[in-house]
Amino acid sequence: MEQLKRKIAEDGTVLSDEVLKVDSFLNHQIDPELMLAVGEEFASLFQSEGITKIVTIESSGIAPAVMAGLKLGVPVIFARKRQSLTLTENLLTASVYSFTKKTESTIAISASHLSKDDKVLVIDDFLANGQAAKGLVSIIEQAGAKLSGIGIVIEKSFQSGRKELDELGIRVESLARIASLAGGKVTFLEEVRS
Amino acid sequence: MEQLKRKIAEDGTVLSDEVLKVDSFLNHQIDPELMLAVGEEFASLFQSEGITKIVTIESSGIAPAVMAGLKLGVPVIFARKRQSLTLTENLLTASVYSFTKKTESTIAISASHLSKDDKVLVIDDFLANGQAAKGLVSIIEQAGAKLSGIGIVIEKSFQSGRKELDELGIRVESLARIASLAGGKVTFLEEVRS
Repeated sequence: MEQLKRKIAEDGTVLSDEVLKVDSFLNHQIDPELMLAVGEEFASLFQSEGITKIVTIESSGIAPAVMAGLKLGVPVIFARKRQSLTLTENLLTASVYSFTKKTESTIAISASHLSKDDKVLVIDDFLANGQAAKGLVSIIEQAGAKLSGIGIVIEKSFQSGRKELDELGIRVESLARIASLAGGKVTFLEEVRS
Repeated sequence: MEQLKRKIAEDGTVLSDEVLKVDSFLNHQIDPELMLAVGEEFASLFQSEGITKIVTIESSGIAPAVMAGLKLGVPVIFARKRQSLTLTENLLTASVYSFTKKTESTIAISASHLSKDDKVLVIDDFLANGQAAKGLVSIIEQAGAKLSGIGIVIEKSFQSGRKELDELGIRVESLARIASLAGGKVTFLEEVRS
């Protein structure tokens, strides 16, 4: 998605060979127009799948997921990373290990919002080692719902997540695929291939 | 806002005299169409204020804030409740006490996204005791920016937050004002007055 890649190239900051900071338009400050375009792109990619629910994870997945939900005309559920007062019963949970924080955490979705009749599109801001995505996939399986695919805003293709999801036979659509952050420079996957 | 009040009456669950569960369209599962309508309402209410930034707090504030940002054509910043790897330097912070969780936490916004030239609209999902709102107001003051007002999706008018913000001379626009949750029933403020 050219508009997104341009934004990453212009406003992203490479903090290390593994960390890209996109706090100015995705992870902390959000560009609503760009999120609408991202949502439209996801909707277009998964239009024919008969999606009934979008599932994401707080917090940075919410904006792109809600725009995709608006365009597909379906509700969005965000998995919570911590306990909430009004979200206590009948939870589907998964354990997610964060390589960056080196901590294990539990993500949860209320069972009342997912059923075996749902066709689910998972959306997240980043795909790195795939831990969050696999946690969401596990929750969707527990609900007996059908996973139609995963939409990712920015994929760090040099980390293992994409490969692992491919091996599970899951359809993954990433709007920007980053081959490398080496030398403080963002290199997209297409540039490497061409 | 009639569409929102209808949704609260139909899909909200009163858990106690103080707690309203709206997990099916706002706090966990999100209704994107309703969020767009909510965003349009905020944009219409604050249209003439020359807003340059919207500030909210993760996670439930993000959807209504992004829709308002889309309609006003301005970026949205969400305050983080916990430390993030790529959000470490130059933070504006405030301490927020949660009456429901009985814990004190720190919320943070990167100073690089707010300047003294900004006119800020704060948006949040709930106004109860006003702690989160006052934390965001403190951060906006630290940045030297101008606070133009606060937009709230659901106000629990029987708690102290609205009164305290009124006393600070802050313009607060709440799309649904709840006078009482007594007897397991949602009573809106207008019904009490008329």
